[in-house]
Amino acid sequence: MTSTDAATDGHEAAVLLERTRTAVNPRLRDTVESLPGSIRRVAMYHFGWEHADGTPAAGSAGKAIRPALVLAATRALGGDPPQAVRAAAAVELAHNFTLLHDDVIDEDPTRRHRPTAWTVFGTPDAIVAGDAMLALALRLLAEDRHPASAAASARLAACVIELCAGQQADCAFERRGPQEVTLDECLAMATAKTGALLGCACALGALYAGAGEETAAAMDAFGREAGLAFQLIDDLIGIWGDPQRTGKPAGADLAAYKKSLPVVAALNSGTAAGAELAELYRRPMDPQAVRRAADAVDRAGGRDWAQLQAADRMSRAVQQLSRAVPDLAAAGDLLSLAEFVTRRTR
Amino acid sequence: MTSTDAATDGHEAAVLLERTRTAVNPRLRDTVESLPGSIRRVAMYHFGWEHADGTPAAGSAGKAIRPALVLAATRALGGDPPQAVRAAAAVELAHNFTLLHDDVIDEDPTRRHRPTAWTVFGTPDAIVAGDAMLALALRLLAEDRHPASAAASARLAACVIELCAGQQADCAFERRGPQEVTLDECLAMATAKTGALLGCACALGALYAGAGEETAAAMDAFGREAGLAFQLIDDLIGIWGDPQRTGKPAGADLAAYKKSLPVVAALNSGTAAGAELAELYRRPMDPQAVRRAADAVDRAGGRDWAQLQAADRMSRAVQQLSRAVPDLAAAGDLLSLAEFVTRRTR
Repeated sequence: MTSTDAATDGHEAAVLLERTRTAVNPRLRDTVESLPGSIRRVAMYHFGWEHADGTPAAGSAGKAIRPALVLAATRALGGDPPQAVRAAAAVELAHNFTLLHDDVIDEDPTRRHRPTAWTVFGTPDAIVAGDAMLALALRLLAEDRHPASAAASARLAACVIELCAGQQADCAFERRGPQEVTLDECLAMATAKTGALLGCACALGALYAGAGEETAAAMDAFGREAGLAFQLIDDLIGIWGDPQRTGKPAGADLAAYKKSLPVVAALNSGTAAGAELAELYRRPMDPQAVRRAADAVDRAGGRDWAQLQAADRMSRAVQQLSRAVPDLAAAGDLLSLAEFVTRRTR
Repeated sequence: MTSTDAATDGHEAAVLLERTRTAVNPRLRDTVESLPGSIRRVAMYHFGWEHADGTPAAGSAGKAIRPALVLAATRALGGDPPQAVRAAAAVELAHNFTLLHDDVIDEDPTRRHRPTAWTVFGTPDAIVAGDAMLALALRLLAEDRHPASAAASARLAACVIELCAGQQADCAFERRGPQEVTLDECLAMATAKTGALLGCACALGALYAGAGEETAAAMDAFGREAGLAFQLIDDLIGIWGDPQRTGKPAGADLAAYKKSLPVVAALNSGTAAGAELAELYRRPMDPQAVRRAADAVDRAGGRDWAQLQAADRMSRAVQQLSRAVPDLAAAGDLLSLAEFVTRRTR
């Protein structure tokens, strides 16, 4: 993988993220605080700025990877990052809108180590707060007087539609049998659900640097490919991650019958091990079955495939980045962030 | 009330609505058809263009009151209505986003005489389809090259946040006791939930005619006041409407313990009849209790109050309209539509 020493140790990315939070969080928080009464409470809780009873909380609003990509893309193309802070906040709002609604839809009980908003405020309030956060994201851009704001709004709105399609596909896949999801469908879903917003963040940063459509598209592709690499690695960790480092039991994704990318690759491999995995996915999953399933994914080639795909996606990402930023020295921050997201849970 | 003969018989409004549907529905439908796969199916079903199995349906997409207000406002201010078709479609999409999510939240089983989308496709798909329709509405405006599109996007996004606040308040009121909602809170909720989008439709029409902020604000106020008049009359009909004309049993809103405006006025009247109504609202509601409750609302002054308020709101609406369109002759279409919405269910 192409990388500098500074990028690989993750320190540079950590500094970038910290700097991004300092630059973007005040704007993000002001914007969220502008929401009407009860919706504001749900949103403030979701971001970790308030407890359920409305008292202040010290929690952070997330790592700010997407806002960092916006600002880094602007900087890489010679733009002025402070001018893109509003766009960075808009992307983070859109991201958090998806988290609120996904938690409702998936009935997830925890998010960032706290009870999810719907478990605290009820499903109706969580749906409505998510709606308002989406509208707020697009309002932030529409009210921006930067010349790029209209193009940025259009891109973010289109991206949200893609995120919705990804979430919808994800739910639909869960209802299907183990061998009824193709690898192409699964890759398309991961691209829509994970890659699209990372790509959009990079594209918005480009637009706010005054870049044209072609450069914005290359930046978008960079973020997408990096996002897909992240998803592949995250999926590998969901099976073979070290419980001590991930905080989850070994094979957590298998125990939950998740149709993650290595699993779908194995199921579609046409191998005996793939058939064995399909059979295991139809039966109750005890720790021994989890171990057997992990082994079956490996023997069916799912592990190797995902590792190669991840490397391939990262190299495509860098290729796209070099199209957008011919002087790769200027793209150091973007590379650091891309490597950070693809290794953050290892 | 200020009105022309043509306006009062409702014929002119019916023609306007028909003409609006002809002008806007093709654009609306093209836009909805651009949604990705499964989301498109939910949206096409919701609009009545497809059956649940995806086969074509002849159903209409609703009366198109909001798009008609957009186009009529543009025309009243000397603009070119065809240029505002995209904005009209965006407003209708935003309206239908609220319908999709409100049906999920309120667990309503029917909409436009058909099973609601969530009952057919499940709650997750209905939430996601609503999200995508909201993003699509704002995307339509962001992609418009009309000089008013940025201001229109900002107004529509702000309006959606207000709609969310209204829906949130509506849910919160239902959880409170009969005398724990004030009339001011109830009027604010109705303004946010019903008035805001009618006002936004008129304001967008003004912006697309090249009007300034002041005129747009007056147009917004016209739509809001007319919307509130509509809500008051709708609430009266919910209690005293003729079952033969409304298609609902007499006193339907009372049987459902609805805290509609005349009911809240009665509950807050400080009269003996108001206390009697509060007591009835705490007990099982049989047909005799419904008749007694209707009588109590009447004796507590809730009926008179709502009728006077409705007339007052209509006169305020006309006053605001005359600020936006000094030559009221040019505003005939808007008046016809305002009178149509306030009498449509009688």
